[in-house]
Amino acid sequence: MDCELLIRNARLMTCDPERPGAGVIERGAVAISGGAIVWAGVDGDIGGVKEASRVIDAGGRLVTPGLVDCHTHAIFAGDRAGEFGLRASGAGYLEIAAAGGGIAASLKATRLASDETLIDLLRERLRLAAAGGTTTIEVKSGYDLTVEGELRMLKCVAKVATERDMPRISPTLLVHVVPPERKADRDAYVKEICESLIPKAAAQALCTAVDIYCDEGAFTLDEARAVLGAAKRAELAVKAHIGQFADLGGAELLGALGALSGDHLERVGDAGIAAMASAGVVAVMLPGACVQLRLPVPPVEKFRAQGVAMAIATDLNPGTSYCEQLPLQLWLATTHYGMTIDEAWLGVTRHGAKALGMAHVGLLRAGAVGDVVLWKCGHEADVPYRYGAANTLVDRVFRAGLDMTAM
Amino acid sequence: MDCELLIRNARLMTCDPERPGAGVIERGAVAISGGAIVWAGVDGDIGGVKEASRVIDAGGRLVTPGLVDCHTHAIFAGDRAGEFGLRASGAGYLEIAAAGGGIAASLKATRLASDETLIDLLRERLRLAAAGGTTTIEVKSGYDLTVEGELRMLKCVAKVATERDMPRISPTLLVHVVPPERKADRDAYVKEICESLIPKAAAQALCTAVDIYCDEGAFTLDEARAVLGAAKRAELAVKAHIGQFADLGGAELLGALGALSGDHLERVGDAGIAAMASAGVVAVMLPGACVQLRLPVPPVEKFRAQGVAMAIATDLNPGTSYCEQLPLQLWLATTHYGMTIDEAWLGVTRHGAKALGMAHVGLLRAGAVGDVVLWKCGHEADVPYRYGAANTLVDRVFRAGLDMTAM
Repeated sequence: MDCELLIRNARLMTCDPERPGAGVIERGAVAISGGAIVWAGVDGDIGGVKEASRVIDAGGRLVTPGLVDCHTHAIFAGDRAGEFGLRASGAGYLEIAAAGGGIAASLKATRLASDETLIDLLRERLRLAAAGGTTTIEVKSGYDLTVEGELRMLKCVAKVATERDMPRISPTLLVHVVPPERKADRDAYVKEICESLIPKAAAQALCTAVDIYCDEGAFTLDEARAVLGAAKRAELAVKAHIGQFADLGGAELLGALGALSGDHLERVGDAGIAAMASAGVVAVMLPGACVQLRLPVPPVEKFRAQGVAMAIATDLNPGTSYCEQLPLQLWLATTHYGMTIDEAWLGVTRHGAKALGMAHVGLLRAGAVGDVVLWKCGHEADVPYRYGAANTLVDRVFRAGLDMTAM
Repeated sequence: MDCELLIRNARLMTCDPERPGAGVIERGAVAISGGAIVWAGVDGDIGGVKEASRVIDAGGRLVTPGLVDCHTHAIFAGDRAGEFGLRASGAGYLEIAAAGGGIAASLKATRLASDETLIDLLRERLRLAAAGGTTTIEVKSGYDLTVEGELRMLKCVAKVATERDMPRISPTLLVHVVPPERKADRDAYVKEICESLIPKAAAQALCTAVDIYCDEGAFTLDEARAVLGAAKRAELAVKAHIGQFADLGGAELLGALGALSGDHLERVGDAGIAAMASAGVVAVMLPGACVQLRLPVPPVEKFRAQGVAMAIATDLNPGTSYCEQLPLQLWLATTHYGMTIDEAWLGVTRHGAKALGMAHVGLLRAGAVGDVVLWKCGHEADVPYRYGAANTLVDRVFRAGLDMTAM
């Protein structure tokens, strides 16, 4: 067997579910051909690989799957630093809204921005994400909220998704909030989403999943049921923002629908956790936004006890977490959230990919995509441990076998 | 008046106590000559400055004082990532100590390291700190704990302090814990510190302050009183780590001694806060270590109400906060700690300098040192707001008028 890239002499974190924990092989090697992994295992056993166009000796350093950021709002225009300052001064939600802040501010700026602007802003953020090791990233719409505007956002995402120096994009249609101009018209708005936006987005293959913000100040449980039902009828995967401010029963709904993930989860109750566990719904947690909003820590111990797969994401967005860096989230996950090193790493690799419905992403074994990060450090604990410099510990990033750091 | 460097057209954060808040001048300019600031004010008023060797047009972007990191343990050898992993798995203090972790692990590695190694490690960390905007940094000893070994650590610090491409160093003798080999001999150890180490360090001008860790598992209040008393007799400034795990009454002692600062403070009580307020003791808070150890947030509102000056530092150390970056601490301060944008910035500038007894550092006005950071963003809220990229928002760093970014 020949291959394009062979990485040897690595502390290889495979994240292979057939190995315990994060599946670390202390002296491992991985071979990539045709953009996919053709072999991963103990370095001494690579007899099957005869030739390699490029061989990298990792010198005993850490090699992991490319990171998966499974929850971002990476496409938006405008800046909400002023609102950040107001919140730091103790301003509450209403005061911020009265000052023109909140999602409405991003809505206004995004609607006014040209396609070129939106695309450039998205590219810049994805470049920073890739520099921090991210090779797969979910990008949500949700800052226009008209039918045509949401389709436009997704088309901009689709354009960037074709560019090979960008991370692999998983596009999601986000039903974020009822836009200000439709407040008096709420039922008709939800109907329009279900009967026009979702079928159009599905027909044009602009997204693989539909997400809804089901919480206090956003959509009710009944509205979420209607929207996610429409998504299922359009053969799209479903997920939801739930339990950030109040537990409206969203987790139980996601369990019943066989959703990909429930996201945020600071206030999800025991019945919801049980429903997620039995349906295999991934718990996507967003520690940056949790710290920034001073919310309680989600029930990590209960997820662990019930066997719910846990993922960690940046929540990159202009309001509550302006961060493209998964390494920093690993620090928050392993300290503030009380996750183990293995749990946190699985959260930004295999479990992050599971939250996107991508079974061949986020792990290193034959058949998986050839997404690999070489780190400057020797152990997986070093990345969260050295949290101040975490972003600078990435050495090389390969997406589908292509060296993104060389582009 | 001529000057070497004139920065114009800036959003100038002066941190001048004669101006409100962080002393921002919306369109300001600052002139540096002979390593010091000779003029700072409104851009239109610079008639007094006739000639400048170098003029920088900031293009409306943010210009601040060089950052002051007033609490670090930046000189140490060895790595405690393994211990970080154990703690993430739920291990407690005793379990970590039994596995050879804790301060004892850094003690062992630091004692074994050569001067060259210690100096190289310190330089590398200070270079990262400077890249994040730090121009003045406190460095504590405290990882040898024998008389000769502590003096050796301070001599290594003194060597780096002479290098002009490094931040300005404020060296502190830290009486950290009773070393393992002196546990049976505790009183004699404290006596040796008071009668031998402190007078020797003072006589050789190796430190400007003495710090003691007065908390559960470290030194008692009586021991702290003895040690800081010896420091005062040697004409050194004093400060202490207090209230991180238990309130032993350290804040009251620091008030009575007229200390520079009390540091950590998660569990300081009302009487201690009042003592700090009346004596002008700075409250140095370390949000990175607080998050990492999952400690309660210090009583920021009480410090504010009582008029205690608040500083923010990295606590850079191998056990509880491996971070050289003040911009990231600004995010934690303005979110997790509930400080305002102005409070957080003053905490890493003028108030940080006050905690080091440096009245001419951490502000931009005539007579202050010529330490200036030019940022890539337009507003002081942007730095904590864009927390994922905060480290990359630094454009240029000047220390005493010298461009550190060009070295």
